Amino acid sequence: MPGKTDLSTLNCSLARALAAAGDWWTLLIVRDAFLGLSRFGEFRESLGIARNILADRLAALTAEGILRQEGTPRRPRYRLTRKGREMMPALVALMQWGDKWQSEGRPPMLLSDESGEALAKVRVTTRRGKEVSAVRFRPGPGANPRTKEFFERRARNAER
Amino acid sequence: MPGKTDLSTLNCSLARALAAAGDWWTLLIVRDAFLGLSRFGEFRESLGIARNILADRLAALTAEGILRQEGTPRRPRYRLTRKGREMMPALVALMQWGDKWQSEGRPPMLLSDESGEALAKVRVTTRRGKEVSAVRFRPGPGANPRTKEFFERRARNAER
Repeated sequence: MPGKTDLSTLNCSLARALAAAGDWWTLLIVRDAFLGLSRFGEFRESLGIARNILADRLAALTAEGILRQEGTPRRPRYRLTRKGREMMPALVALMQWGDKWQSEGRPPMLLSDESGEALAKVRVTTRRGKEVSAVRFRPGPGANPRTKEFFERRARNAER
Repeated sequence: MPGKTDLSTLNCSLARALAAAGDWWTLLIVRDAFLGLSRFGEFRESLGIARNILADRLAALTAEGILRQEGTPRRPRYRLTRKGREMMPALVALMQWGDKWQSEGRPPMLLSDESGEALAKVRVTTRRGKEVSAVRFRPGPGANPRTKEFFERRARNAER
């Protein structure tokens, strides 16, 4: 796995999101937090990972502001912050992709809203609501010279 | 990082999606494929990773059916399959989360559809289009006994 600093220095918000997430375990801890788990022992039982790895990942998620520690230091609960809750579209989209492609269409878990209404497939749309099948990229306000150069070179190649 | 087999045996499509994705590099390779890159050298220049790591991840993505090899074996191109293209909602959602929380609202790259219309924020909705702020989970057709037990235990705890 690439080190945290490697990814977070890349000029791309996806890379930075992955760097913040840390590793696969942390995304599964976030999933468990969405499921309502909050105690060290609950995460441990759910994921079956070593105590030291779980402690490390919970500390990293808390340091990133994705989880917040509540309750007493001796018996803390870990809850999603707003930053953590806003990972929901990405996690639901990944889970739906896994349902289709890695679970033979037999989802281990079904998702609904709080009233029990089934979720729609997460889609990419334009601001006016048109479904998008192919995306285009261009440099944004946070683009560094290397990113700008990449797009300029590509535009030149496309003209040929 | 947990081993591939650990995650893929968990009774959860998110875990299986992460197992299929492999590691952070593979998601960035998929991002680059969406950007239109297809050559070994293009991925290498974009990501700045070691040749052996890149070769390994390209082979894994091809074996998973996320990329497909085209052209001659000596000078192959790697293209997204349908399975790969369907990762778009998850990647766009993660990138948008990174734009907001890890790039101080200054996105390095802006996304649009092919006509140049800006993308909307990826949202989770019910099938009838209602935006969802909190999700509920229940066992699905692919739930194993352990998953079912988890939900039964939780229902009992909630009754207390």
